[in-house]
Amino acid sequence: MPTTERAADQEASGLVDERYVVGVDYGTLSGRAVVVRVSDGAELGSAAFAYPHAVMDRILARSGVTLPPDWALQVPSDYVDVLKHAVPDAIAAAGIDPANVVGIGTDFTACTMIPTLSDGTPLNELPEFADRPHAYVKLWKHHAAQPQADRINELAAVRGESWSPRYGGLISSEWEFAKGLQLLEEDPEIYDRMQHWVEAADWIVWQLTGTYVRNACTAGYKGMLQDGEYPSRDFLKALNPGFETFAETKVAHQIGQLGASAGRLSAEAAALTGLPEGIAVAVGNVDAHVTAPAARAVKPGQMVAIMGTSTCHVMNSDRLVEVPGMCGVVDGGIVDGLYGYEAGQSGVGDIFAWFVENQVPARYSTEAAAAGLSVHQYLTELIAGQPVGGHGLVALDWASGNRSVLVDHELSGLVLGTTLTTRTEEIYRALLESTAFGTRKIVETFTAAGVPVTEFIVAGGLLKNAFLMQVYSDVLRMPISTIASDQGPALGSAIHAAVAAGVYPNVLAAGEAMGKVNTNVYQPNDEAADAYDRLYAEYSLLHDYFGRGANDVMHRLAALRREGFAAASAGAASVGAGGTDLDSLEQQSLEPEPEHKPEHSAGATAQSMEAAK
Amino acid sequence: MPTTERAADQEASGLVDERYVVGVDYGTLSGRAVVVRVSDGAELGSAAFAYPHAVMDRILARSGVTLPPDWALQVPSDYVDVLKHAVPDAIAAAGIDPANVVGIGTDFTACTMIPTLSDGTPLNELPEFADRPHAYVKLWKHHAAQPQADRINELAAVRGESWSPRYGGLISSEWEFAKGLQLLEEDPEIYDRMQHWVEAADWIVWQLTGTYVRNACTAGYKGMLQDGEYPSRDFLKALNPGFETFAETKVAHQIGQLGASAGRLSAEAAALTGLPEGIAVAVGNVDAHVTAPAARAVKPGQMVAIMGTSTCHVMNSDRLVEVPGMCGVVDGGIVDGLYGYEAGQSGVGDIFAWFVENQVPARYSTEAAAAGLSVHQYLTELIAGQPVGGHGLVALDWASGNRSVLVDHELSGLVLGTTLTTRTEEIYRALLESTAFGTRKIVETFTAAGVPVTEFIVAGGLLKNAFLMQVYSDVLRMPISTIASDQGPALGSAIHAAVAAGVYPNVLAAGEAMGKVNTNVYQPNDEAADAYDRLYAEYSLLHDYFGRGANDVMHRLAALRREGFAAASAGAASVGAGGTDLDSLEQQSLEPEPEHKPEHSAGATAQSMEAAK
Repeated sequence: MPTTERAADQEASGLVDERYVVGVDYGTLSGRAVVVRVSDGAELGSAAFAYPHAVMDRILARSGVTLPPDWALQVPSDYVDVLKHAVPDAIAAAGIDPANVVGIGTDFTACTMIPTLSDGTPLNELPEFADRPHAYVKLWKHHAAQPQADRINELAAVRGESWSPRYGGLISSEWEFAKGLQLLEEDPEIYDRMQHWVEAADWIVWQLTGTYVRNACTAGYKGMLQDGEYPSRDFLKALNPGFETFAETKVAHQIGQLGASAGRLSAEAAALTGLPEGIAVAVGNVDAHVTAPAARAVKPGQMVAIMGTSTCHVMNSDRLVEVPGMCGVVDGGIVDGLYGYEAGQSGVGDIFAWFVENQVPARYSTEAAAAGLSVHQYLTELIAGQPVGGHGLVALDWASGNRSVLVDHELSGLVLGTTLTTRTEEIYRALLESTAFGTRKIVETFTAAGVPVTEFIVAGGLLKNAFLMQVYSDVLRMPISTIASDQGPALGSAIHAAVAAGVYPNVLAAGEAMGKVNTNVYQPNDEAADAYDRLYAEYSLLHDYFGRGANDVMHRLAALRREGFAAASAGAASVGAGGTDLDSLEQQSLEPEPEHKPEHSAGATAQSMEAAK
Repeated sequence: MPTTERAADQEASGLVDERYVVGVDYGTLSGRAVVVRVSDGAELGSAAFAYPHAVMDRILARSGVTLPPDWALQVPSDYVDVLKHAVPDAIAAAGIDPANVVGIGTDFTACTMIPTLSDGTPLNELPEFADRPHAYVKLWKHHAAQPQADRINELAAVRGESWSPRYGGLISSEWEFAKGLQLLEEDPEIYDRMQHWVEAADWIVWQLTGTYVRNACTAGYKGMLQDGEYPSRDFLKALNPGFETFAETKVAHQIGQLGASAGRLSAEAAALTGLPEGIAVAVGNVDAHVTAPAARAVKPGQMVAIMGTSTCHVMNSDRLVEVPGMCGVVDGGIVDGLYGYEAGQSGVGDIFAWFVENQVPARYSTEAAAAGLSVHQYLTELIAGQPVGGHGLVALDWASGNRSVLVDHELSGLVLGTTLTTRTEEIYRALLESTAFGTRKIVETFTAAGVPVTEFIVAGGLLKNAFLMQVYSDVLRMPISTIASDQGPALGSAIHAAVAAGVYPNVLAAGEAMGKVNTNVYQPNDEAADAYDRLYAEYSLLHDYFGRGANDVMHRLAALRREGFAAASAGAASVGAGGTDLDSLEQQSLEPEPEHKPEHSAGATAQSMEAAK
């Protein structure tokens, strides 16, 4: 029979020799693998695996030692466990023959950094360093390097460093150089022993291929690699004499372009994952950036907001301009041939999850369960019908600091306007709204800088909240499109895997074939938008008052908090405890620490919140 | 045998012919009766009765109609129920013969107002008015007359009214004239029908004696009676032509001095309470003011803080000065012969109760119960050992507005400094601290105005929280003395009853014999005080920024909230609800309103929180 007839016949009988790729998305609390058909992007099966150590932000699990404020650590072996469990589970769920998998791609939270030996061994796996916090992964939301970031920014401004405007004039405490300088200054022995300061995005690829390749995306956005150069030795020496060779000895490495193959799946990794040895492994990438092609949104002016634990905003442009407070602009940082811009909000779903975990009384959980809803859904349903401003509240979305446009991780959260009749769900709504206002601030800043945002596309777990999407549409006065995949980043990684395997010539073409979007799902309501304008005016006043130096109370409180922690660590824990007859030990035992931490809750809600970082 | 021997003998055998008085304290959520021995103030038995209708601040119970924001109503018959239940129960608990009771005294929250007919019948008891919110009691914390208070204050300033400085230049929306003007303007039919605008403090005495006597304390502090005059007809007419005769036709009445007898217990009231007909009934009084003699603190410079749902500060002085933002100064307003000053914080225990009801997750209740503690106690124990400032937070204690020194009930609450690691108990502590800062603001204002605060004595339910007391001592840098009675106001009312019955010549002498105080129970800790100075500096900056006009966001949010309410009432409830598919009715049914309201929780905690207003 003719070829076409045979193909149709085979498809009908399920015998067609389809090819598949696996995308693995590493989020803040878990990793998720998705099996995708290369011909059309169909997602055939997925599986998640929660990191056993979750996020360590109060206590180092191994020693039980208390971590200072603003720390956030992880354990690298947790990432390998994802490969071991989630990948075979996804293959099984998809019901395909793993022999037909032609490539694997990964994306990661960033900037998430691992100190390693030359062979990639994480320093926390050396017995002598296992109790040392600085030997562990510094997760993206580790914000304790703010003093170092401040010094980097001040010095860059004084010296007029050419790379500085590419990052909106301010680099983040989350990034490679700030975290590296903190490591040098707080634990020089670990710093000296460290041979590579590796993005987790690249470390996991290293585990798959056996070879270290540094991806162009994080190197540019988080490692300040611009026009082929890192910050100079002179600059680094001026920060700290011991930091002079940081870029060349700890950071610099062979760069891999996005969509390229970083190598072939090693025998060890094949055994771990059940995938065929020798298949293509895509160069590492970042969750937000891989999502743009997955949402078919890589054209200039199309801003993709990946809304999960935090929100990353990525957008291409054919123009290179300076956007105040953006995270960065990198030539080819999202796709070849365009300037890739990134901005972000450090806390979004994380803030909602914190609220539900720490501020919502039992009756809501009970009633939500009775109604068959998550607490998030229940709170949303309770409050969705209230007129805009009916709660009398305004909040700032800074509980995890501000990544754009203020770039200041010592800023903190605020809720203003509570009365004795304020209901829990009203505060929840004010927090939802505050993140929409934060996004509007970013959109307005891009547009004012000459790279107008003409379309707004949402990906990530939060797009499931229709009310939240409507709030964003009303606050932005823009239609909202949504990615037609529950696993945008994993799909994006799979798209990159297909390119790395040679199935498509480039990411743009693969995205057109495999990406999915629902266009203009939400439309702004004029009346609501008018009322939100008034709340946004209040948000903006507070944003500038607390964020631009008029009242630095948040910084002073952060300093007082650190002093308090230092005093307590020095054994002076009784300061201010004059009126109590409990000693510290008793309080320690009263407080069931793990249950107080949102990271340890493994419910469906937490899962849905962190589909993307 | 000689008389003295006989008395000793009788006392040993319990046969002595002791005399007793009953004090009844009407709080925000319940009334409490205490039986007190006149010879030494010993409290022999007490009983409480919770108001069946509690506080109506969302829904009018009878009709189910939704009340606007800032309303707070009560039902007068609830007060009579206290006489019927709590008084006999207290007599029974004391195990005394009611025939030996020689007097009864009462105190009440203020300014709490009842519109009545000429015979004292509350207007809500007329069938034709039973569904009209304005026919009910406007509780002290009904704050919806702020626009009227603003107009009164503006006009008084423009006209240079002589009474205005006696109230710190600003009268409160809680007071008789503001609430009365709101009544006129919003429900003129009720206003016209009303023959007396009666303080609940006097209305309950009216129920006991059958005669209406207006007490000098509320007449002065809440009714603006100064030097024998109310605000003039000209002034009232300028506010609203219909208000011209308000003072003379609705408010003015025969004044009774504090400690005097208002009359004799009527036959009906004797039947209701089980007390002897014809015993002395003391002139009505206010919970805070009666407490000063109960704490033996009526000398100049002794500030008594009655800390419960809210805090009232009362202090005598031999000087008449103007204290900015005080509630008022009244000649003989606390005891004869001295100027009585009053200031206050509208929300204190109410704020803590709101937090526990609306912001504390289930695990805390579970763990508190397991430890045999209230949630308040458990939160306090969890956080008491943290160094000052270790939470990184600062809060404003304005969730129920600000009574002193800003006198603005459209101010609202604020919590600043939250991060994703902020724990529930840390916010609780920040709220505790915020009320201490509010008290410090009042103390500093008094001292700066020339009436220095030299001693600080605490009464009310919150004195049981030793940690809170230590915070106050550290924040004020003053020792804290505490009343040695669980029922300060009721004891104070009993002291007034003893004077009314002629057992003592005056309140001062009765207080010396029957009052009780523990001196300097808490001492300031210098190190903690230094750290609190830094937090207080932040509090002061925010206090002035949000409270003195630099950013009127709280007023604007309150206005937006009212507009939203009005729009919803007008049937436009769907504004902003574009993204939800729930209609208002469904949401109404989703929300179990009564259980959401702190006033409806009848646990031990709520009781202990509201021993005083």
